[in-house]
Amino acid sequence: MPIKKSIVVFCGSLREHSFNGAIARSLAELAPEDMTFTVLDGLESIPHYDADIQASGFPAKVLEIADAIKNAQGVAFVTPEYNYSIPGVLKNAIDWLSRVSPAPFAEKPVVIQTASAGILGGVRAQYHLRQILVFLDAYPMNKPEVMVGSVQSKISADGKLTDEATRDFISNQLAAFSKFIDKMS
Amino acid sequence: MPIKKSIVVFCGSLREHSFNGAIARSLAELAPEDMTFTVLDGLESIPHYDADIQASGFPAKVLEIADAIKNAQGVAFVTPEYNYSIPGVLKNAIDWLSRVSPAPFAEKPVVIQTASAGILGGVRAQYHLRQILVFLDAYPMNKPEVMVGSVQSKISADGKLTDEATRDFISNQLAAFSKFIDKMS
Amino acid sequence: MPIKKSIVVFCGSLREHSFNGAIARSLAELAPEDMTFTVLDGLESIPHYDADIQASGFPAKVLEIADAIKNAQGVAFVTPEYNYSIPGVLKNAIDWLSRVSPAPFAEKPVVIQTASAGILGGVRAQYHLRQILVFLDAYPMNKPEVMVGSVQSKISADGKLTDEATRDFISNQLAAFSKFIDKMS
Amino acid sequence: MPIKKSIVVFCGSLREHSFNGAIARSLAELAPEDMTFTVLDGLESIPHYDADIQASGFPAKVLEIADAIKNAQGVAFVTPEYNYSIPGVLKNAIDWLSRVSPAPFAEKPVVIQTASAGILGGVRAQYHLRQILVFLDAYPMNKPEVMVGSVQSKISADGKLTDEATRDFISNQLAAFSKFIDKMS
Repeated sequence: MPIKKSIVVFCGSLREHSFNGAIARSLAELAPEDMTFTVLDGLESIPHYDADIQASGFPAKVLEIADAIKNAQGVAFVTPEYNYSIPGVLKNAIDWLSRVSPAPFAEKPVVIQTASAGILGGVRAQYHLRQILVFLDAYPMNKPEVMVGSVQSKISADGKLTDEATRDFISNQLAAFSKFIDKMS
Repeated sequence: MPIKKSIVVFCGSLREHSFNGAIARSLAELAPEDMTFTVLDGLESIPHYDADIQASGFPAKVLEIADAIKNAQGVAFVTPEYNYSIPGVLKNAIDWLSRVSPAPFAEKPVVIQTASAGILGGVRAQYHLRQILVFLDAYPMNKPEVMVGSVQSKISADGKLTDEATRDFISNQLAAFSKFIDKMS
Repeated sequence: MPIKKSIVVFCGSLREHSFNGAIARSLAELAPEDMTFTVLDGLESIPHYDADIQASGFPAKVLEIADAIKNAQGVAFVTPEYNYSIPGVLKNAIDWLSRVSPAPFAEKPVVIQTASAGILGGVRAQYHLRQILVFLDAYPMNKPEVMVGSVQSKISADGKLTDEATRDFISNQLAAFSKFIDKMS
Repeated sequence: MPIKKSIVVFCGSLREHSFNGAIARSLAELAPEDMTFTVLDGLESIPHYDADIQASGFPAKVLEIADAIKNAQGVAFVTPEYNYSIPGVLKNAIDWLSRVSPAPFAEKPVVIQTASAGILGGVRAQYHLRQILVFLDAYPMNKPEVMVGSVQSKISADGKLTDEATRDFISNQLAAFSKFIDKMS
């Protein structure tokens, strides 16, 4: 029996009925059977990065996430675009995690989905995130890229990703990601 | 008597003895006489952006900063580079401020200084910030750009920017910024 | 009678029936009456930048364009996105022009339109171009931004921009650009 | 006997005594014994991309380079930064190559060196190139990154890379790249 590929999922949006949260929760049902997904919670509880805080110890949540990444075979980022970049809350989690040793993201395969109400689907955030991932030494898969535009029309009232075309895009991306993880291992 | 040009200063680093904080505090003495500077505090008290929080009201600190920007003639960003981009804490403040109406940054002249311990002086963060400023409709001055490398050797033990070359670079930049504000008004 | 605002237009696509070329030619009829537009030709005749060539003299076409920019009140870039950035031919023209003294682009107001067959309308090219413009010391207007997706359905067989919504977007942008030129003068 | 890893090298500078050219030629002596390097010539002979030219056939040089890449185990880009991005001549070669089928860069491991006379070593060009490589589906190694500042002081009059520290940086990078190629194969 093949070992499951466990994926840690960052969601860049905090609100309860977040569209990106709905996508994050949908990954498991859209992925190949050999993948499992754990959507991180508690990003909002991490204080803004401050080296003085770090000097007296990393927040427990940061260490918990670092461990989760270290034990995972891959990382997914599901995020809206705020101000043509990634949300501050997501960047802050990364800022903390980048200080943990050994580096939790090092050589981890990464997959990205962005979603927005506009037509562009958060595309601008993707390349900022990719530049950040160079420093983290993580490897985002190139293709297929997933940007979900007009996301409000693709999520049901009870928070399910219902748009068939988007479901197919993500299924294809996750199938490719499973192979990418194999390649990068 | 000409009216003073008041500049609101964002500092991207929170630690007490921050090098970027030292630079932020030095701007007033390096600038033309017609400029005044107010370094913002309390960025660490702003919660991570969450539309559910916004629905019950903006944090007071966000509204306070929005007002400060609205009443200022310009904005300065003094920031380290974290993970090849701007710090999460700075991005989070921007994420909140971008939701305030009327848009506080709209058409504001902006000046940028980045500083880092490495040789590159935080340069990668500058173009991420500039892309963000397009959405905010703010106008960062193009030249001269200021990136302070090896910053730890340029700040005294009591937190003063002592490196003469850097002081000159910033003086020249702020003199240009004073004219840029006139042009953009 | 107010002086006309003359705009020099770079088109990033060389093929005869270029969609971007069609947009470039449409600017005049969509703009306020006080603007005139000159679409540059001959970018394909400029050799690839080589400092050894420069040492024996700038190509005549480069000097001609530099003069045209110097005498204009603004610059427009109308371009497809190639490989998530601006076309090489457009970058090459810029590489030559950036060596001419005095700097032709310095402090020039700039307006950008991108167009592509895909849904994203060439958006990725816009921020690469904006980063390039920082070095050139040119000032691209922030808003409104124009990205024309599915451009093949918006241009008629005889090379006219016929899509009404796109025509309105560009008209609004050029009206804003006229005011931006006034502000930056 | 292990099979040699052959690397195709793009140089972004055309002048005869190019510093980047000197670095490109130095790669072979700095690399592990199992790597060979072929520095491409003739980029200046490739016409500016024009779909009408493509319609009557790709330039022979483009097809020759596409073949060289297809048969190589990796690609190196050694380039100056022009106007905060990659040179037009390099972008143009990429614009042509991206149209060749099958895609020559697909899944190729890539290593990047930039060099400039200034202190920043061409760093801004690296992230533009990395964004371009996403579209090409190539995989640039993350670390170590090599930016060579003050390059004019590191190359001898006869065009040799003589700076020991830089030679060490590049040796380490190429040793890592050899392993990266193994991983990505």
